[in-house]
Amino acid sequence: MINSITGGVTAAQGFQASCCAAGIKYKDRVDMAMVYSDAPCAVAGVFTSNVVKAAPVVWDRQIVQNVKQAQAVVVNAGIANAATGPAGMAMCEETAAFASKTLNIPAEYVLLGSTGVIGPGLPMDRITAGVGMLAEKLSDTLEAGTAASKAIMTTDTVNKECAVTFELPAADGSGSVTVTLGGMSKGSGMIHPNMCTMLCYITTDCAIAQALMQRAVEDIVKDTFNMISVDGDTSTNDTLLVLANGKAGNAPITADGEAYQTFREALFTVCRALAIKMAGDGEGATRLMEMRVINADTKEHARTLARSVIGSSLVKAMVFGKDANCGRILCALGYAGVDFDPAVIELYLLGENENLCFYKDGCVQNFDEDKALAILSENAVRFRVDMKMGDQEATAWGCDLTYDYVKINGDYRS
Amino acid sequence: MINSITGGVTAAQGFQASCCAAGIKYKDRVDMAMVYSDAPCAVAGVFTSNVVKAAPVVWDRQIVQNVKQAQAVVVNAGIANAATGPAGMAMCEETAAFASKTLNIPAEYVLLGSTGVIGPGLPMDRITAGVGMLAEKLSDTLEAGTAASKAIMTTDTVNKECAVTFELPAADGSGSVTVTLGGMSKGSGMIHPNMCTMLCYITTDCAIAQALMQRAVEDIVKDTFNMISVDGDTSTNDTLLVLANGKAGNAPITADGEAYQTFREALFTVCRALAIKMAGDGEGATRLMEMRVINADTKEHARTLARSVIGSSLVKAMVFGKDANCGRILCALGYAGVDFDPAVIELYLLGENENLCFYKDGCVQNFDEDKALAILSENAVRFRVDMKMGDQEATAWGCDLTYDYVKINGDYRS
Repeated sequence: MINSITGGVTAAQGFQASCCAAGIKYKDRVDMAMVYSDAPCAVAGVFTSNVVKAAPVVWDRQIVQNVKQAQAVVVNAGIANAATGPAGMAMCEETAAFASKTLNIPAEYVLLGSTGVIGPGLPMDRITAGVGMLAEKLSDTLEAGTAASKAIMTTDTVNKECAVTFELPAADGSGSVTVTLGGMSKGSGMIHPNMCTMLCYITTDCAIAQALMQRAVEDIVKDTFNMISVDGDTSTNDTLLVLANGKAGNAPITADGEAYQTFREALFTVCRALAIKMAGDGEGATRLMEMRVINADTKEHARTLARSVIGSSLVKAMVFGKDANCGRILCALGYAGVDFDPAVIELYLLGENENLCFYKDGCVQNFDEDKALAILSENAVRFRVDMKMGDQEATAWGCDLTYDYVKINGDYRS
Repeated sequence: MINSITGGVTAAQGFQASCCAAGIKYKDRVDMAMVYSDAPCAVAGVFTSNVVKAAPVVWDRQIVQNVKQAQAVVVNAGIANAATGPAGMAMCEETAAFASKTLNIPAEYVLLGSTGVIGPGLPMDRITAGVGMLAEKLSDTLEAGTAASKAIMTTDTVNKECAVTFELPAADGSGSVTVTLGGMSKGSGMIHPNMCTMLCYITTDCAIAQALMQRAVEDIVKDTFNMISVDGDTSTNDTLLVLANGKAGNAPITADGEAYQTFREALFTVCRALAIKMAGDGEGATRLMEMRVINADTKEHARTLARSVIGSSLVKAMVFGKDANCGRILCALGYAGVDFDPAVIELYLLGENENLCFYKDGCVQNFDEDKALAILSENAVRFRVDMKMGDQEATAWGCDLTYDYVKINGDYRS
């Protein structure tokens, strides 16, 4: 059983976090964060599929693939360190070297994350000064985790944290131990993950083999972070990292089995919750949108159909306007690239108290416009389509398209 | 040589057009149009790739594939006759039957087009009354063609027409004859054609074999209508039809050769001009955006890269805000699904008098922000990327993302 608890990256044993105002780009706000484990961690991760990869993505990927262990994460908001060429990689090296010296850990145990404007280089004097402050302020309190989750925000309006506990057999055979897994993430523009999402860091005190954890991560992103879209743009910086330090004292998970499945469920729960938080806090968004596809012929078709609707500008604008223009959902299903029979599918708007049938038997149905308006005014707008082709399903999450999205992105750099 | 002339669907010999206010949905404006040829025409066409196809698309496709001839087109704006099931097809049959009787031509020579809201059925009494008015008002003047191009508008802000003439060898061997080709089209939301565009009708007095004309149409849409995007949504109603009545008296084109290539160039010129007009008049748009990809390894990769940039919400919002946030263009190239080396490509902003280098050698360049603002304020915003991989190129056209797009689409039905 997976229990939700309060907390984020410091919920699990042995993890500390901190933040500081380094003055990278924003004024009068925290803009750097550090996550630290007092013991080396197995590290798993997935990264952007964008051909143009930010320097910290190249840096982290190398650690996940070759070093497979890490002990600290240093993140800055404001500048993405992307499209910065060899100089950008040198900035990564310098940051990691400085953190290595300050924290007294190997430089290849220092993961890096950057988010913000693409193009400019990092102000290295402020970055290194920031690393110094971060190392001094490390704390294992829940508040320190929350503060770190606020420091990595860009256009996010709320910070995003989530944590769970679960029971696993103890290493010493004496019954069970409680394992904790928690994380933080940030959105909220350039969000259309294709491997994983913008920046998400998850920590756990679970003892688990690195290869198995990597497998769980790659598996889980397909139904969580890869199923959300704010604007269809896959960022250069997308990063999901999971650090496991083994401090919970569970019997190490080294193969698929009951313990692995429990760990997987816990990781899925946290990733799903963080993904939904990111979708609902998309740039300028007023409402979360959810599209559930049921009875598709294959899982991949279900995902593709759900994502197509979530990504449609016309559907997003209609949700903003609370306009039950359901033909746009049909249209977005139709151009998803999946074959189906429009004469048999059924489309519903799901309300908290009542569902409305938008479309069946090949025709848009007559529905009560007042009821539709009421449901479209709920905090989360949920649609469900029954493809009547098989038993596979998938859900995607997004948000509405608003004036504020245009405003935020019409003049982001200033 | 291809000469631009004034005119649209009535520019070519033997074609007439008309329009009327049938009260389909809009009040106090023309909303139905007819195009008629006084002789049967060879007809070629391409249609939406959307699985959910509007009834008139199904109707027209059957004519293009089986009948291969036509003599009239009846179009209404306001209601799309899509997602209307078997009743929608019956409406097509009834409309064509009524036009057949009124115009004294076979019902299978009557092409149909609808654009507007998805879902509702057509008000058949108004449609048939409209067909009667249209038949009475037919005229071969250029003004009649222009009036028809206005009647098919929905959220378009300007009507879209284009016509050209070219010389071909005469059928009787007595030198050359002048052939005319002209067309009209409408946008401006749900525009992301994938086979062809929303509604476009082209007429010509050229004598050409139907199969050859169909080949030219399928070939040309790839670099014209399929290279524009307003909002990434591929409509249920996309239709491009070309009618050729042979009245110019040219030696009929029955095989590839010089005459076919001249015809192809003329058709390309008109399709390209109409496609660019549609992109520039996208819903809410203030400016046309052009993305040219040069030196790609394959034509298809060049197209894919150009389309990815044109479709990016972040790039579109940046063009609206006149913000030279060029990292977003790089990002959109990077997630297009085409592999390339970010260290060698070069990206430019093309001004009327000067070009600015945004990115080369793997880094965003320092450029004069005032000059960038001046160029981004021009009527058409043009970008060029040199992939340095081969010699293939492609250009895509789109528009900026504005408050008005959200406004128009947040409450389209009312």
